[in-house]
Amino acid sequence: MNASRDSARRAKQQTMSDTPLQVIPLGGLGEIGKNMMAFQYGKDVLIVDAGLMFPENDMLGIDYIIPDFRYLTEQRGLRVRGIIITHGHEDHTGAIQHVVSALPAPIYATPLTAGLLEVKLRQARLLDRVALNVFEAGDKIDLSPFGIETFHVCHSIPDCVGLGINTPMGLFVHTGDFKFDPTPVDRWVTDYAKLASFSARGVVALFSDSTNADRRGWTPSESVIDGAFDRVFRAAKGRVVVSSFASLISRVQQVAWVSERYGRKIAIFGTSMSENVKMATKLGYLDLPDDLIISADEARYLPADQVTLMVTGSQGEPSAVLNRLATNRHNQLNIETGDTVIISAHPIPGNEETVSRTINRLFQRGAQVIYDPIDSVHVSGHASQEEQKLMLNLVRPRNFVPVHGELRHLKAHRELALQVGISDENIAVVENGTKLLFHGDGRMTIGERVPGGYVFVDGSSVGDVHPSVIRERETLGRDGVVVVTAVIERGSGRVLCQPEVRAYGFVTSTTGNNLLESGVQSVRRVLEQNGGNASRKRDQVEDALSKLFYNETRRRPKLFVTIHEA
Amino acid sequence: MNASRDSARRAKQQTMSDTPLQVIPLGGLGEIGKNMMAFQYGKDVLIVDAGLMFPENDMLGIDYIIPDFRYLTEQRGLRVRGIIITHGHEDHTGAIQHVVSALPAPIYATPLTAGLLEVKLRQARLLDRVALNVFEAGDKIDLSPFGIETFHVCHSIPDCVGLGINTPMGLFVHTGDFKFDPTPVDRWVTDYAKLASFSARGVVALFSDSTNADRRGWTPSESVIDGAFDRVFRAAKGRVVVSSFASLISRVQQVAWVSERYGRKIAIFGTSMSENVKMATKLGYLDLPDDLIISADEARYLPADQVTLMVTGSQGEPSAVLNRLATNRHNQLNIETGDTVIISAHPIPGNEETVSRTINRLFQRGAQVIYDPIDSVHVSGHASQEEQKLMLNLVRPRNFVPVHGELRHLKAHRELALQVGISDENIAVVENGTKLLFHGDGRMTIGERVPGGYVFVDGSSVGDVHPSVIRERETLGRDGVVVVTAVIERGSGRVLCQPEVRAYGFVTSTTGNNLLESGVQSVRRVLEQNGGNASRKRDQVEDALSKLFYNETRRRPKLFVTIHEA
Repeated sequence: MNASRDSARRAKQQTMSDTPLQVIPLGGLGEIGKNMMAFQYGKDVLIVDAGLMFPENDMLGIDYIIPDFRYLTEQRGLRVRGIIITHGHEDHTGAIQHVVSALPAPIYATPLTAGLLEVKLRQARLLDRVALNVFEAGDKIDLSPFGIETFHVCHSIPDCVGLGINTPMGLFVHTGDFKFDPTPVDRWVTDYAKLASFSARGVVALFSDSTNADRRGWTPSESVIDGAFDRVFRAAKGRVVVSSFASLISRVQQVAWVSERYGRKIAIFGTSMSENVKMATKLGYLDLPDDLIISADEARYLPADQVTLMVTGSQGEPSAVLNRLATNRHNQLNIETGDTVIISAHPIPGNEETVSRTINRLFQRGAQVIYDPIDSVHVSGHASQEEQKLMLNLVRPRNFVPVHGELRHLKAHRELALQVGISDENIAVVENGTKLLFHGDGRMTIGERVPGGYVFVDGSSVGDVHPSVIRERETLGRDGVVVVTAVIERGSGRVLCQPEVRAYGFVTSTTGNNLLESGVQSVRRVLEQNGGNASRKRDQVEDALSKLFYNETRRRPKLFVTIHEA
Repeated sequence: MNASRDSARRAKQQTMSDTPLQVIPLGGLGEIGKNMMAFQYGKDVLIVDAGLMFPENDMLGIDYIIPDFRYLTEQRGLRVRGIIITHGHEDHTGAIQHVVSALPAPIYATPLTAGLLEVKLRQARLLDRVALNVFEAGDKIDLSPFGIETFHVCHSIPDCVGLGINTPMGLFVHTGDFKFDPTPVDRWVTDYAKLASFSARGVVALFSDSTNADRRGWTPSESVIDGAFDRVFRAAKGRVVVSSFASLISRVQQVAWVSERYGRKIAIFGTSMSENVKMATKLGYLDLPDDLIISADEARYLPADQVTLMVTGSQGEPSAVLNRLATNRHNQLNIETGDTVIISAHPIPGNEETVSRTINRLFQRGAQVIYDPIDSVHVSGHASQEEQKLMLNLVRPRNFVPVHGELRHLKAHRELALQVGISDENIAVVENGTKLLFHGDGRMTIGERVPGGYVFVDGSSVGDVHPSVIRERETLGRDGVVVVTAVIERGSGRVLCQPEVRAYGFVTSTTGNNLLESGVQSVRRVLEQNGGNASRKRDQVEDALSKLFYNETRRRPKLFVTIHEA
């Protein structure tokens, strides 16, 4: 379609309706539109992704974080036509049970993604209450007024898609997480032709993955890992332990190839990885010889140079297999001198310290540890700057909205868009909860800001752990607590039982006992002074103990003082 | 000195004494020998560096960490002949007050390092009790039996030295932190000639900086930053804010050059940076035109495009200037649209999250933020692999001991030493507290392991915060506390006052009040049951509340239950 036909179509649409298409990036911790996006036309809504984020180091006690999607639940009469999940990573799937419980709607996903969603929905006892529809990359999905054309993209899990979304306001393209890997392990490249065909039809706006917008050049192909694996396996004398993400199916394929080449069998440790390998094999995403995978027991009786172990825990997670090996807490396995450990992953931001510690401990136990940059045993799954520019040039959108990244990445992506010739007024860098309005004439405007941040999940509580509770936890975690209780006689104020002073997280018992004993005496002294009711005495006890502890230790434990009158 | 003369000298020494020279890397969190090393011959000791480390994210409440040097304090009759500080960074100077208090000895440092030490010693009221001796790089220091030849090295603070240490067991070389910058800002290159001259005399062992042993190639010169600064300053329309380490004096010089070139005056914010600039100017390490530095007030009245602000806080530290600007909490300054902020530093491992958050917030406030890799506005101060190999080839030591790095870095450095032809049996990768023994015939053996880890400093307590206390703090920080107190009548068990149930860091008051009210009722129910003494009732109350809270929230706050009998 050429430019004049395109504008004619747009003009026609404008007469049909003045309702703009609204696009709202929702949720996520710092990253914009990564975990969830809503496309709304009138009362009809299309949701793209429903993911979770992991808490940062200072979000004490939080299990995980989900998008704040109350803007959708609070609108009356809304029709959610469908929830499309672009790929099977947690940050795109992990909030699905929360989203479908609040916003019942059919889910759409490719086979592998659907398989992973099925596990989650079964665990949440929701599987029989939602429609989970499977499509293949390239299929069209009609969720009128949205007509979705799915297309394959490369990333770090198989079966990922991006979306062309036809709406009454024109065609929109959402890349999902992507890279342009020219030689992916599964030989299934990103769908260049479809992207180029969109540009020919005229694209109102492109929403594109910004994760690596500050990395120059081109993200290396997954295939470079084959070379690194070959070097490491060729040199290895003992067992080879490969740690990676449980969802990185192509990495399992690469480990299988190199293990076969060097006469090694593979035992898989870690429930999530075992289950993913089973599912991926069943669905045809993994091609493994029948006898390649062996059990943990069999691995123990084979010579070390015939064994590969694939394990979870590449982020140094305390309870995952790799960390248990590093700290000698695994009940079936232990690291021995001569073992080679490959960390086939990069630390997710915030995990650098735990990953370093795990690597150092593996070295301490006598292993040789190979990680990037020692050798190229991992590559990113996201496009770098040259790929992002290629995406912009293939799609040639009228408007550009960088998504999937922190604000700094969106800003860097904006610079790239300017370089390829998109005008500044056609680029929108927005935060979660900011509405983008697309009008009949192809214009993009920025609308109101609605709630669109994040919600803490802690235990069974969704959203009732406020930042104030986190700050209280910080106080407790910094200097510990001292709990003081005493009973005085109503009226006389006479001390009825020996006051109790207990500390936790404040001083060790050996050095602290004298200090706590001084505390008890200090409490008695205050209580035995004349006058004052229990509440007044409580304040006096708090004052006296705060001073005592600060003078002795220069620390300020949180004090809980209770004075009962009996 | 040729090889035969060298061996003749060694043979002579051997007949003089069979006492080996002992070298012990001490202290530090994961990094080996970085914060302190001891060279011991008989009862004579030379200490190199006395630094601190900052706690990792999960070391709750710890202020800082110092080396565990009790191996030295517990030896009777030890003579510490001197403490040489190689350069002015905290991880080499920050424990000086702890070390000289326990091990009184003269300190030796170059002028800038001595200036920085003076501030610390004055604060600790130790300045009049220790001898602080100043030397120039290249000077010799006689601390018999140790004869030290100092030599200049490049790093990320001026006036750094490495040490040639002549002992009865031969010559040892300690690089300090170093890089081979061919074009450093102060034009003072690492002393290649001295290093080469050591090799001619025969070096028993080299102790070399391993920080970047997993980085390929050559660390870029500080001069590349000039180009990046020029690009940024040329394009900047408003104020330019440069954030860096307070000790990075050469960066101040670079900012001064580019500011002068583009007609900007510089205001410095942050006490530590102001003081360092004053001291470095006085000592001649900074060459600033008289009128270039202006006050904060003057900066406010100049046009934005004539102002550069240099600020502290490049690590996102909450109370430093940059973070206060990012969160609009600075009383004199605020970030405006059009400002350009340069983060001229890399995040120290563990600070990635806080640095990212700060960058995103600066973008939110309308600033353009430039950081590496967006442009080359910072380079490492440590040698990469090619430089480490150059050091090995210049010094050509008989034995090699990688230091200053985590175990993984030492292992990577070992690989480089193998590549340049050092034999495996002449390389020692050891951990803190492991003694290295150097014998009269030039052999290196590994001796016993002595305490040499780290000691937590928390408030005024040095060493009495044990890991068990940190674990208690973790428990508190994860789910908060609930404090329960009740009074029962002795004998009858009758409940005398209304039980109290208080929560902190567990639930917010709005959603939590009902739960805590249920808690009070649950406590009453248990207490009103017949039988049981106070201790038995306490256990029952704990059981009942644990169950109640877990069922309602799936969380396990730490419970403190006190039942008084009155």
